[in-house]
Amino acid sequence: MEPPAPRRRVTIVDVARHAQVSTTAVSKVLRNAYGASPEMHAKVRRAIDELGYRPHAGARGLRGQTYTIGVMLPDIRNPFFPEILDGITATLEGTEYQVFLGPGCNGEKAEARVTEAMIDRGMDGIIMIAPVSSRAHLEHVASSVPTVVVGRHGSSPVYDTVADDDIEGASLVVGHLAGLGHRRIAHIEHRETDPTRLAEMPNARRADGYRQAMRAHGLAEWIDVVSTSYTQEGGYQGAKELLDRPHPPTAVFAGADVVAMGVLEAVAEAGLSVPGDVSVAGYDNTTFAALGPISLTSVDQAGYEIGRNAARLLLDRMADRQRPPVRIKLSPALVPRRTTAPPPE
Amino acid sequence: MEPPAPRRRVTIVDVARHAQVSTTAVSKVLRNAYGASPEMHAKVRRAIDELGYRPHAGARGLRGQTYTIGVMLPDIRNPFFPEILDGITATLEGTEYQVFLGPGCNGEKAEARVTEAMIDRGMDGIIMIAPVSSRAHLEHVASSVPTVVVGRHGSSPVYDTVADDDIEGASLVVGHLAGLGHRRIAHIEHRETDPTRLAEMPNARRADGYRQAMRAHGLAEWIDVVSTSYTQEGGYQGAKELLDRPHPPTAVFAGADVVAMGVLEAVAEAGLSVPGDVSVAGYDNTTFAALGPISLTSVDQAGYEIGRNAARLLLDRMADRQRPPVRIKLSPALVPRRTTAPPPE
Repeated sequence: MEPPAPRRRVTIVDVARHAQVSTTAVSKVLRNAYGASPEMHAKVRRAIDELGYRPHAGARGLRGQTYTIGVMLPDIRNPFFPEILDGITATLEGTEYQVFLGPGCNGEKAEARVTEAMIDRGMDGIIMIAPVSSRAHLEHVASSVPTVVVGRHGSSPVYDTVADDDIEGASLVVGHLAGLGHRRIAHIEHRETDPTRLAEMPNARRADGYRQAMRAHGLAEWIDVVSTSYTQEGGYQGAKELLDRPHPPTAVFAGADVVAMGVLEAVAEAGLSVPGDVSVAGYDNTTFAALGPISLTSVDQAGYEIGRNAARLLLDRMADRQRPPVRIKLSPALVPRRTTAPPPE
Repeated sequence: MEPPAPRRRVTIVDVARHAQVSTTAVSKVLRNAYGASPEMHAKVRRAIDELGYRPHAGARGLRGQTYTIGVMLPDIRNPFFPEILDGITATLEGTEYQVFLGPGCNGEKAEARVTEAMIDRGMDGIIMIAPVSSRAHLEHVASSVPTVVVGRHGSSPVYDTVADDDIEGASLVVGHLAGLGHRRIAHIEHRETDPTRLAEMPNARRADGYRQAMRAHGLAEWIDVVSTSYTQEGGYQGAKELLDRPHPPTAVFAGADVVAMGVLEAVAEAGLSVPGDVSVAGYDNTTFAALGPISLTSVDQAGYEIGRNAARLLLDRMADRQRPPVRIKLSPALVPRRTTAPPPE
């Protein structure tokens, strides 16, 4: 087969001429920099579309920009992450930036490999979703390239953060279950031993929030936390352990919907019914939770909004690397569904 | 905060010295080229690990390699794709290649944008999963960079393919349902009008396979296909349409598990039970299908094996761009579960 003949590449000069503006103006629009009016944006966008212009990453690399944003994703199977990703891509849609996902970051070593690979390839910005790396590593990444950290609490002078109020979210779940009359409310958490992560990771905050709320409702003696992982398998194992107790809980608060999936599996396997024998609540309000036959009580942490905010902060930070760091904290909401009900008599 | 002081970068020369081999040998191992013995691989790998060497993508780019592989993913929510991805990453684990995912390819335009972005950034190879683009576009991509196309039938002189036998898969489902006594077996397909896609896309082949199998079982008069899309929403809409028929089907064969998710939702909403009133089968045998409370009859097309084969073909093709194209076709297997049973009396 003959490869198609290469056409002459459309350049920024062609775009400027076509739009009847300066090349500086075109460049401003491409970089999403300040000082380009909405009219200017519209003009340049139209010219770009009409000419089929696309910036050349190689050439841009030489000028220090590759128009590439890396998103580090810990687990492609967690149905919460696509929501965040949708918010990111929707926000970047009007820009020249292309998003690439670095998958398979299931630990500090893998996170280091992926972030180094992103820096190494000259990516202009990085969004790290729920990273488990040490603060030092996050700051190392952020000192190399504009970085937004999603789903980590605590602050840093070098990166911006977007997180959900996980203490509040856990308190909403415990309040809901206690209100239904449950006392033996157990929690399945993602195991954490590192002191920084215990203070900063959403999973650790949810476990803290659970304990605080249990105490606030006078249920301190029923506090029961099983440590596994935020995976379907982790939920399955955790639930099996809980159901094997001499006095099994009447309600299980799983730290994430993906964990609740495994809990539902273990409960069904034990021949018990939900919510007749055991109430189950998750966290994240994924499309999975909303699904008819599942109908899982969960906590909506507005993944789309998280993604949208992360992308906006990153665009901002890329335009001005010196601006002070921003922390955005979003409020969660309880979504009660059919997996929670009063405990059996 | 002070950024950490840069360390001197470990070079290929350091690795060669440490491993007591030539720099050419190190380079061969890095490129996964022919002519490096397993012992040589082991020696070089050890030196790389001990020194913490990682190739510099920028420098490599100048020599024509970036050690980056792009995987084009149409829909991050389809739980089948992580299986393929696992097979790809596991196969590349022993190499220097880093995988980046291009998400959000929900149409020809988006696919063109993502593949151009990958070529533009000098990626060494591309794996396109279930692309909907024209053959001409696929061949354009493959003429620029080594390419493996996953989940498309038909052959090309310029790219390799890995696909499942979708006709056989559909026939397994229809045979299973007919064997249970169903006659009104309906199918929900992903709408397709383009003639190339009608010949090459797995969804179109599954719809063809459904029709062929219905005829083979003497059920031609009951053939009933609803065209929506391979999404949860598509399944929901398709099932609503089917359930509104004067004589609704007793079994629904959804073209993908993600479609079956929407079917289950619509059936529950209509106050009907599965499989008491309606049997439901999916396709892909995702972790979702295997989940206890869902327990969906599905077709296992060995996503992990598909991914493993795709990555191996790509490594091969990158080492020898002139070799003749390879087509790998895998055989599916039926996995009967609790959503299919004999029709109501």
